[in-house]
Amino acid sequence: MGKVVAEISTSLDGYVAGPDPTLEEPLGVGGEQLHEWVVRLKSFREPHGLPGGETGPEDDFFAEAVNATGAVVMGRRMFSGGEGPWEHDAKANGWWGDEPPFHKPVFVLTHHARKPLVLEETTFTFVTDGLGSAIDDARAAAAEQDVLVAGGAETIDQAINARLVDELQLHIAPVLLGSGTRLFDGVAPELPRFEVTQVLESPLVTHLRYRVLK
Amino acid sequence: MGKVVAEISTSLDGYVAGPDPTLEEPLGVGGEQLHEWVVRLKSFREPHGLPGGETGPEDDFFAEAVNATGAVVMGRRMFSGGEGPWEHDAKANGWWGDEPPFHKPVFVLTHHARKPLVLEETTFTFVTDGLGSAIDDARAAAAEQDVLVAGGAETIDQAINARLVDELQLHIAPVLLGSGTRLFDGVAPELPRFEVTQVLESPLVTHLRYRVLK
Repeated sequence: MGKVVAEISTSLDGYVAGPDPTLEEPLGVGGEQLHEWVVRLKSFREPHGLPGGETGPEDDFFAEAVNATGAVVMGRRMFSGGEGPWEHDAKANGWWGDEPPFHKPVFVLTHHARKPLVLEETTFTFVTDGLGSAIDDARAAAAEQDVLVAGGAETIDQAINARLVDELQLHIAPVLLGSGTRLFDGVAPELPRFEVTQVLESPLVTHLRYRVLK
Repeated sequence: MGKVVAEISTSLDGYVAGPDPTLEEPLGVGGEQLHEWVVRLKSFREPHGLPGGETGPEDDFFAEAVNATGAVVMGRRMFSGGEGPWEHDAKANGWWGDEPPFHKPVFVLTHHARKPLVLEETTFTFVTDGLGSAIDDARAAAAEQDVLVAGGAETIDQAINARLVDELQLHIAPVLLGSGTRLFDGVAPELPRFEVTQVLESPLVTHLRYRVLK
């Protein structure tokens, strides 16, 4: 069985999104800076249908993580931004367009039941009975591969609290956002310990990989 | 002229001290964990009068920073914990005992004037006219060497806001504290950008060195 991996980019002051997210700027003010490191990598650009991109150790690191992933779990807001019933949702089909970059099964946590959304190479399945259930479904879909808990912060915190995360990958960008949504704010009351297993340096970000001690 | 370096250990969730600091536990609940990495190093133990200690790349990294430092600036609470006039302060002579580990001039920010405290190889000078003045005094004392802004978080934030910090060294321990005192909470309104200049991995902590872009 694969690992359950949580992965997210944060600012130096711990934010995974800036303040005042909108439909145009879903990561909030300044939030895009956290992802500058990834959009230039070949292994990111290819599944997003973008040309070119850098290769090298950082691209290998990212490609390895992508290739190890068999299924993805995400929170509702990461899928669509909305919180109400789907028919009232401005992005009812998600942020991800007609050709989502995942190319693997994605399980979306929500309170609003909905039939699976089958797009090119990606199926979004909507799970209404909680994170544990979504991770179980993702594990089954991933078979021997890893399950990626892709965000947002609240979903990752919840997965850490439930002791469901085996590995945490943080990408720390050298910027401050000052306010917004913080990772770890919802982790309580028993705080896990971590063991650093890999550090990869790059100009735009520092990659830290931790084993979560249970 | 040397650099102005701010240096501090933080948790993965960005705290430099845990909640509920006391005289017995000045770093708050769990705060000691942030410093486990340093107390085992030879170049830390020696000036603290402790025997033994590890050598190697991490010890070299720490020794290099210590040797580059010509003077230290710290906030009042880092010196003594108290906030009132010295005669009411439980640790009027500071946390640091009769043989402080600095072995160089230390400038303490305070609102309460006081004559310098001259101890073995360390003189504490109390500066009542603000951080800029304390850093000027420290620069003069350090001559060609670096000035270390040693903490706490509030003092470092203030120095970043005043664009007085050239280099930031963070030591990120793989623990969560959940609450306490956070670095960067007082940085505003104009957020600086950083450039990562060195990353050093060790089992107990990840060392990140940033140049502050002005």
